[in-house]
Amino acid sequence: MKVTVLGTGGWGLTLGQVVYENKNELTFWTNSQAEVDLLSTEHQYKDKLPGVIFPADFKYTTDMHAALEGCDMVLIVVPSQFMAGVAANLGSWTPAKGKEPIVVCATKGILEGTDQLMSEVILEKVPWLTEDKMVAFSGPSHAEEVSRHVLTAIVAACVNEDSAKVVQQAMSCSYLRVYTSTDIVGVELCGSVKNVIAIASGVLYGLEAGGKFKIGDNTRAAILTRGQAEMCRLGKALGAKPETFAGLAGMGDLIVTCLSQHSRNRYVGEHIGKGETLDQVLAGMKMIAEGVPTCRSTRALAKKLGVEMPIVEAVYQMLFENRKVEDVVKEIWGRELKAENWA
Amino acid sequence: MKVTVLGTGGWGLTLGQVVYENKNELTFWTNSQAEVDLLSTEHQYKDKLPGVIFPADFKYTTDMHAALEGCDMVLIVVPSQFMAGVAANLGSWTPAKGKEPIVVCATKGILEGTDQLMSEVILEKVPWLTEDKMVAFSGPSHAEEVSRHVLTAIVAACVNEDSAKVVQQAMSCSYLRVYTSTDIVGVELCGSVKNVIAIASGVLYGLEAGGKFKIGDNTRAAILTRGQAEMCRLGKALGAKPETFAGLAGMGDLIVTCLSQHSRNRYVGEHIGKGETLDQVLAGMKMIAEGVPTCRSTRALAKKLGVEMPIVEAVYQMLFENRKVEDVVKEIWGRELKAENWA
Repeated sequence: MKVTVLGTGGWGLTLGQVVYENKNELTFWTNSQAEVDLLSTEHQYKDKLPGVIFPADFKYTTDMHAALEGCDMVLIVVPSQFMAGVAANLGSWTPAKGKEPIVVCATKGILEGTDQLMSEVILEKVPWLTEDKMVAFSGPSHAEEVSRHVLTAIVAACVNEDSAKVVQQAMSCSYLRVYTSTDIVGVELCGSVKNVIAIASGVLYGLEAGGKFKIGDNTRAAILTRGQAEMCRLGKALGAKPETFAGLAGMGDLIVTCLSQHSRNRYVGEHIGKGETLDQVLAGMKMIAEGVPTCRSTRALAKKLGVEMPIVEAVYQMLFENRKVEDVVKEIWGRELKAENWA
Repeated sequence: MKVTVLGTGGWGLTLGQVVYENKNELTFWTNSQAEVDLLSTEHQYKDKLPGVIFPADFKYTTDMHAALEGCDMVLIVVPSQFMAGVAANLGSWTPAKGKEPIVVCATKGILEGTDQLMSEVILEKVPWLTEDKMVAFSGPSHAEEVSRHVLTAIVAACVNEDSAKVVQQAMSCSYLRVYTSTDIVGVELCGSVKNVIAIASGVLYGLEAGGKFKIGDNTRAAILTRGQAEMCRLGKALGAKPETFAGLAGMGDLIVTCLSQHSRNRYVGEHIGKGETLDQVLAGMKMIAEGVPTCRSTRALAKKLGVEMPIVEAVYQMLFENRKVEDVVKEIWGRELKAENWA
């Protein structure tokens, strides 16, 4: 199989490595000539995956259409804010009739403004692509771990199960176990909204350090579980399946994201929990915390659909309305008592 | 409300404290006169909840029937292996006609031999008790944290929602948020089987230390999520609701149990993962790891119902059939590739 990977960040390189080890033909595309030069000469990307050395015959190019020539599968692994541009470039290429590749999106996020999931952005920009060849790839998978061959399980989701199975076969190996799903909406929604719950989880760590509330493992498990419950409520309103939210892309990814000390979203929450404003927190960060814009878009989507999401609402008020964290936590904890599954 | 707590372990004392702070009348029962003396004079239980001081007017007795006189609610919080005896004692007491108390079971486990859930044991032994007053109480709730007023969420489950609501009102307070559920089978099953998954999660820590497999946060998140999936499969075969397994008693409790360094089940797994036999591990332990007998009963139940539980099976083979951990892990990781929700 000939595979093209769009994006040479940590996750793109890692997935490329899997493809390569599975004896597929592989080309990377990046829009940065500096990255092409760095990777072609050093065969590693110290800033992103320190200690991981890539095969010397990895091919990198800035010419996307050349990279795509004759490919059977395209993996898109670019930051979400560049998705529209990258997808447009992909859409301006034309595959041979009947030879349209499967497109796998490993980028998570909701486009601000249009509130589109990544697969929706891609489908809109790529005229030759149909839903039955659009696959989302998501799950608890720190790139730093997968690149070191840590045992990992992940989901490939497509409305057409056969396409998901093609990706499952191409990407499964001794350390990566791929499950299929037909619930692409649920899988993509999980991947985005979990970043907002990770901010909420981070707030708890910040509060714990401040000593204003007593926070512990119980509290973190509660926020993850109740976070998953409200993600699931939103998902159901969008036609997703509840079990997806309890699965690898949902609860599984929530666990690694919320508990990881390396999570940028958790970092934002932690500092908000310590009483900083969002501007102060963002001023101290180089990288993007996807949960910040996703909080805004998720809240808008929930309001539009009439879905109650108390944790997302709480994060919104702390981030964008400067509400005191203590007040928000007291309010959310003191909400009317409910049944566990009330919607 | 007059409440009787059967059991003066860490969790029983903690729940009694909640009941007391909520201005209910409270009596503790224990079968140990030494415990009555210790608690009545020291007002603390250093071995079980170090640093927590109880009100001086807490009442303790070894006379169960005296403790039960006129009570509106009984909380049972004894180790599962004593449940049959304690329930028989409760059943030999007779409440005034029409004044039968609600019985809340906060003990988790499956009775070896009969494979009964705790509520089934109680209902069998207590002639005056009916299903609509039998409540299970479960969720991510380390006693050491709740007793220090750490924010915690938990589930009260009963086939009759009104009884669950009575418990919700009686037990909710500024730091404990109680949700109701009508799926008592699911809630109890979660509380038991999670201990087997905790052993599996412990094995990963042991393997990681040994360096034979590369294990990380990804792997732990995967085992928790796939563990939850097979718990859910078993639950569905028993008429439980899938969403319970994604809830506080399921995924929530799995998270605290599997990640906690204090979990006895994780401890067992860790040592098995390092290559010890079960006998060697148990020889080094003073306390009971519920997951060991529960693994046996869960596997038997799954076989009887024809439910596939690969992680429970793997734990069983490692614990009771002396299969090499490396072989079991390789086998389970190399299983046929599947859809995420295949049953």
